[in-house]
Amino acid sequence: MVRKHFSEELDELRERLIYMGGLVETAVHRSLQSVLQRDLELADSVEKEIEPEINRLEVEIDDRALRLMALQQPLAVDLRFVAMALKIGNDLERMGDLAVNIAQGAERMMRQPLSAPLVDLPLMAERANAMLRSALDSLVSRNVELARRVLESDDEVDAMRDLIYRELIRHMASDPSRVERNLGLIFIARNLERIADHATNIAEDVIFWIQGVDVRHHFHDNPLPHEAATPGL
Amino acid sequence: MVRKHFSEELDELRERLIYMGGLVETAVHRSLQSVLQRDLELADSVEKEIEPEINRLEVEIDDRALRLMALQQPLAVDLRFVAMALKIGNDLERMGDLAVNIAQGAERMMRQPLSAPLVDLPLMAERANAMLRSALDSLVSRNVELARRVLESDDEVDAMRDLIYRELIRHMASDPSRVERNLGLIFIARNLERIADHATNIAEDVIFWIQGVDVRHHFHDNPLPHEAATPGL
Repeated sequence: MVRKHFSEELDELRERLIYMGGLVETAVHRSLQSVLQRDLELADSVEKEIEPEINRLEVEIDDRALRLMALQQPLAVDLRFVAMALKIGNDLERMGDLAVNIAQGAERMMRQPLSAPLVDLPLMAERANAMLRSALDSLVSRNVELARRVLESDDEVDAMRDLIYRELIRHMASDPSRVERNLGLIFIARNLERIADHATNIAEDVIFWIQGVDVRHHFHDNPLPHEAATPGL
Repeated sequence: MVRKHFSEELDELRERLIYMGGLVETAVHRSLQSVLQRDLELADSVEKEIEPEINRLEVEIDDRALRLMALQQPLAVDLRFVAMALKIGNDLERMGDLAVNIAQGAERMMRQPLSAPLVDLPLMAERANAMLRSALDSLVSRNVELARRVLESDDEVDAMRDLIYRELIRHMASDPSRVERNLGLIFIARNLERIADHATNIAEDVIFWIQGVDVRHHFHDNPLPHEAATPGL
């Protein structure tokens, strides 16, 4: 086998991450559609088709990243890229799990009459997916500004979740027959919020990769690059 | 500065992971105690003392791992160890976040009268913490058997959660005034379940480190080492 160029392998690793991210977007979109349209087949396709492929890709990406580290011994920005690929693969895999949670929620809720306030969930899903898309775009275009905007969007999604919770809890308290149904919707909102959290993690990883500055744990409010970065890498 | 021996640096990295894991155990234990004892100070100490230290450690561990990769260029089992340290640090950090969620739940629930069925939550917390302890012990003692037992415990915790949910939903439907309270308890059960999931991730990472066999994604039911492992590493 001809040994590939290092940069070619890095490109392939990035390409696999982007492909995996696209699958996650599809999974999130379909899982919510399965709730809204009460479509069992759609829910099933998330669980049985998309998620297994997402899981397979995580293993493949880990494998590629570890091989790259072992055989090419990358340094500085390239080492950060490979290490971050491990983390991003992990985040994407968990987003796939969360989409499966939503699809399973859809299946449970099909057994019950449809209840009213679904209106903000599609918006929340759209927002979370837009965050993922921007995080992946920032990875492709090495755009720190775009990645930072993803961090800011996270608060919006949290606010949406709070609104949805409040509304659903109010309905549950006024009509106990809605408890189980609305609990299902609350869990969906919770899963969407966590999907947005993982998109935020990815954006943070992109910033760390490009700048060597760690923006996790609210360091973006008060950056301490001398503590957070890895000088010399 | 005298350059440290490679094995010494690996030992230090492991020692930091174990220390971080101990803090996470304390955070989980205290957060649940803050719910049971309705103790605001305890909840506060999780949020303001323990979790910031956990976050700091994640950054430190990433930093040490990346330096090790860059300067020592480890191979095979050592490379797997360093890569897995990145992931384990990430899991531990998220467990810290989940403990904070529980502590915040405790604060919200203090404003409401105490409701009955808390009895299974302490058991569930104890179980999740025991899983974390075993996963960390398996890391120290390189004990694959112990790590595999952690994977098996995860189903028990899921079963506990299902019981707790069912009980709480029943109470909510029969008494709407309990909706918000019981929802708080449901979220706590959900957080504990996720803490157990992260302990499982850590055990899976330990197995991968020692054996080079990837046991994620149900490969432990039907191991496919030719697909999952990284040959030559």
